[in-house]
Amino acid sequence: MTIDQSRIDAVLAHVDATLPESLDRLYDLIRIKSISTDPAYKADCRACAEWLANDLGTIGFDASVRDTTGHPMVVGHQRREAGANILFYGHYDVQPVDPLALWESPPFEPTLKKLPDGDTAIVARGASDDKGQMMTFVEACRAWKAVTGSLPVGVSILFEGEEEAGSPSLAPFLDQSAAELKSDVVYVCDTDMWDRETPAITTMLRGLCSQEIEVTCADRDLHSGMFGNAARNALQVISEIIASLRRPDGSVAVEGFYDGVTELSEDVRAQWARLPFDEKGFLADVGLSIPAGEMGRSILEQVWARPSCEINGVIGGYTGEGFKTVIPAKATAKISFRLVAGQDPEKIRDAFQAHVRARIPADCSVTFKTYGLAPAISMPLESDFLKKTLGALTTEWEKEAALAGTGGSIPIIGEFKQRLGADALLVGFARFDNRVHSPNEKYDLSSFHKGIRSWVRILAAIAG
Amino acid sequence: MTIDQSRIDAVLAHVDATLPESLDRLYDLIRIKSISTDPAYKADCRACAEWLANDLGTIGFDASVRDTTGHPMVVGHQRREAGANILFYGHYDVQPVDPLALWESPPFEPTLKKLPDGDTAIVARGASDDKGQMMTFVEACRAWKAVTGSLPVGVSILFEGEEEAGSPSLAPFLDQSAAELKSDVVYVCDTDMWDRETPAITTMLRGLCSQEIEVTCADRDLHSGMFGNAARNALQVISEIIASLRRPDGSVAVEGFYDGVTELSEDVRAQWARLPFDEKGFLADVGLSIPAGEMGRSILEQVWARPSCEINGVIGGYTGEGFKTVIPAKATAKISFRLVAGQDPEKIRDAFQAHVRARIPADCSVTFKTYGLAPAISMPLESDFLKKTLGALTTEWEKEAALAGTGGSIPIIGEFKQRLGADALLVGFARFDNRVHSPNEKYDLSSFHKGIRSWVRILAAIAG
Repeated sequence: MTIDQSRIDAVLAHVDATLPESLDRLYDLIRIKSISTDPAYKADCRACAEWLANDLGTIGFDASVRDTTGHPMVVGHQRREAGANILFYGHYDVQPVDPLALWESPPFEPTLKKLPDGDTAIVARGASDDKGQMMTFVEACRAWKAVTGSLPVGVSILFEGEEEAGSPSLAPFLDQSAAELKSDVVYVCDTDMWDRETPAITTMLRGLCSQEIEVTCADRDLHSGMFGNAARNALQVISEIIASLRRPDGSVAVEGFYDGVTELSEDVRAQWARLPFDEKGFLADVGLSIPAGEMGRSILEQVWARPSCEINGVIGGYTGEGFKTVIPAKATAKISFRLVAGQDPEKIRDAFQAHVRARIPADCSVTFKTYGLAPAISMPLESDFLKKTLGALTTEWEKEAALAGTGGSIPIIGEFKQRLGADALLVGFARFDNRVHSPNEKYDLSSFHKGIRSWVRILAAIAG
Repeated sequence: MTIDQSRIDAVLAHVDATLPESLDRLYDLIRIKSISTDPAYKADCRACAEWLANDLGTIGFDASVRDTTGHPMVVGHQRREAGANILFYGHYDVQPVDPLALWESPPFEPTLKKLPDGDTAIVARGASDDKGQMMTFVEACRAWKAVTGSLPVGVSILFEGEEEAGSPSLAPFLDQSAAELKSDVVYVCDTDMWDRETPAITTMLRGLCSQEIEVTCADRDLHSGMFGNAARNALQVISEIIASLRRPDGSVAVEGFYDGVTELSEDVRAQWARLPFDEKGFLADVGLSIPAGEMGRSILEQVWARPSCEINGVIGGYTGEGFKTVIPAKATAKISFRLVAGQDPEKIRDAFQAHVRARIPADCSVTFKTYGLAPAISMPLESDFLKKTLGALTTEWEKEAALAGTGGSIPIIGEFKQRLGADALLVGFARFDNRVHSPNEKYDLSSFHKGIRSWVRILAAIAG
C-alpha cells in the first residue's frame, strides 16, 4: 500500500510541533547514568532499560526488560501479519565520563549550546552515542501512532545495554530470541552523516584478521661484539617479513590475498566520485600527503573497498634510553588485515601464516596468536529496503544520500546476519565532530529533529 | 742482547718457589674494595692506588699516585736509555658485587676453590678482572729484579682506576703525560686465553658505529579502520629500511660499506684455520645452526674480520597485551655496525644516514642520534713485538699461541694509538668461564702462575 503524501506531511507536522516534548523525553533518558563498563552504575543501567520499556509501552509496543548475564536488553514489538517487519537496534549504555574536569557542563545534565555554525547542540554523555540517535526512531514511531493510530510497517525494537562493553550478551540473546526477532531487515542507528548536509547509509564494513607473531632465533640475547654477523638477529628476520608483506605498488603480497575480491560496481564508483570528499584534506588533516595504498585507486576506495595490511606494533631488543649492542633473540609484531567482501578471514590467516613460515630461517621459529577474525559486511545494493531508505533520506535532506563504506568493523552487524539471517542498514544522523567517547559529547538539534523526520519518511517508504 | 736461557730458567724457578708470597700479595690487593662506579668506595679506590704505588716502589719502580678528576692513576717507571721501552696497562678498579646473595664466599675475601677439571681457582671480585691479570706482570718484574737485579727491558706501568666506569680520565691523562709514557709498544693484560691450553694475543678489534633512527609519518597515531591503506605506517617504513640493510647473501647493502675493507692475509687465514674452533658448537651453544653473515666466509672471519650490521632494538605502535588496530605515527630503531680496519666510522655513519633518507617517503621524516663512533684496531702482524711475544707464549704453554680477533670494541686501545702513537698487544690469561662482572668471579691458579712465567719469557724475548 502506498501512503498518501498528506498523511506523511501530517506526521511530519506533528514531529515539528512536538519537538520540545521529544527533547524533554531525551533529556530524561540522558539523565540516567547508564555507564555499562563501571559496575557502580549497574542499577542505573537497569533503570534506563526500564525507562525505555515503559516509554515504548506508552506508544503501543509490547515491550519488556529481558535479563542477560550482564545488563538487560529491552525488546518491544508492534508486528504485522502482512507486509514488512523491520528490527530497529540501538544501545542505551554510554561511555564513562572521565576526564570529568574537561566537561564544560555536567555530563549527565543535557545542556543546549549554540554552535559556531549557527546550529544548536545538546551537550551530554550519550546525547549522540547512542541515546539521541535511537530516540529519533522512537519519536518517529510516536508521531505515526499519534497522527494515524498505527505504524505503517511492522516494527520490533531491540535496545542493548552493553554495546560500549563489547556486546558480550548480544550473540546468545539473538540465538535464543531468533524466532521472536526475525525480521526482513535490521536498521541500526549508530553511524554518522556524510557531512552536515548529506545523509548517508553505511553499506560496506571491512572485516578483520589480526595476528601476533613472535620470532625466536637464539636461545638468549647475544652480544653483537661476540656474535655480530654469525648469529641470526630476530629483529632483522621480523623486519624482512614485514617488508615482504607489501609490494612497492602498495598492494599486499600475501599469496592469494586478493582472491575473491571484486572491483567496485560502476554505480558505486560513480556515486563515490560524486561525494564531496577532499582527498588532499583527508591526509593533510593528519600531516600526510601521499596515499600509501594501492596505486591508481582513490583514497575512498583504499579505505572502504580494498583490503589492507597494517603493522600495529613491533617490539624487540633494547628499547630504553641509550644503547646496548644486543642481538635480540626474540621479536614480536602485531599485524592486522582489514578485509573486504569475498575474503575468507580464516583463509587469509592461513595464507599469512604460510607467508611468514616460508621466511623463517631453518634454525629459528615462530609462534602465532590470533586476536580477531571477522568477515567484511556488504549490504546488497539491489536491496529494496536500501533503495527506499535512500529515497526517503534524499527527500528529507534535499541532497542525494551517500552510500558510504567504513574502513572499520562493527561486529554486531555480523551477528545479525549470522543469527537472524537479516542484512543490516546503518542509518545515522551523527556528525564527525560529535566527540563521542570524549568530554562534551554533543548531538546537533538538527540531527535529532531531521533524524526523526527521516525515520517518518523511511517507515512510509518501506510501507509504500 | 740475547739473554742466557739459564738466567731465564733461574727467574722462572724463582717464580715457582715464591708463588705463595705472590698469591698473598694478590690477596691483599683483592681485599681492597675498589669499586669505581660507587662513590661509597672512593677512599678504597685511593687506598688501592696507594697500595700499588707502594708495591711497585719495593721492586725499584719510580712510582706514584696521580690525581685525576675521578679515581687516581698509578704510574711507575724503570726505563732504559738503550733498547726497548714498553708500557704495561692494567686497571685496579672492579665491578660492583650485586647480587651479593649469589656469592658462595665473601666477594672481597679471596677463597681457593677446587674446580671440576682438577685445577684450583681464586674466587673473589677482581680475581680475574683485572687484579689477578695485572699482578702476573708485576710478579714477573719482581722475579727478574730478585734474581738479576734489573729488568731486561725498559718498563713503564700505568694502572687505571676507572676502567669499569668507561675510563673518563684516561684520554686527558694520556694527553698530559704523553712524553712521560712514550713507549715502543703497549701491553694490555685484560683478555682471555683461546682455551685453557692455548695462549692468545688479540690483534684485531672491530670498531663501532651506533645509530638510533626515529621515523615519523602522520602527526598522530591513526585508527586502521579509518585510515588503513591510505596513511603511511611508520612501522612498515622502518621495517623496509631495516630489511634493505642486508642482502640475501648476508652482506650489508649500504653503499660503499665495504670500501677499504681488505681480505685476510693468507697467513692469518691459515693460522685461524688451525685454531681449535668448533664452528657448529659456537652456534649450537646458543641454539642456532646456520651462520647469518656473508655466505662463504667462516664464522671466525664473520665475527672478527668482517664488518656487521645489527638491529639492536625496535619499538613502535601498540606493544602491550591484546591488540589495538593502530597505525603508528612513529617508530624507532637502534642499529649498530661493527667495523673493521679500513672503514671510517664517520663515512659509515654518513652512508647509513643517506641510505635511510633515500627510503623515507616524501611526506614522512627521520631523525638520527649517534651513540658510538670508534674505528677498528688492527695490530700490524709483521710487528717484532708481536712475533717475540708469540714465541714466548708458545714456549711457555707448549702450544702455538693463537692470533685472535675479537668482535667487540675496547676503546682504550684506540686511545693508546691516538695519544701515544703506540700499538697495543693484548695478552691475557683469563678464561671464558671466569664470570667477570658476575658473582663468584674466579681466576685459575694456573692462569696466575703460568701468566707470571709467560711475562718472564716475554720480557726476555723483547730484550733478545
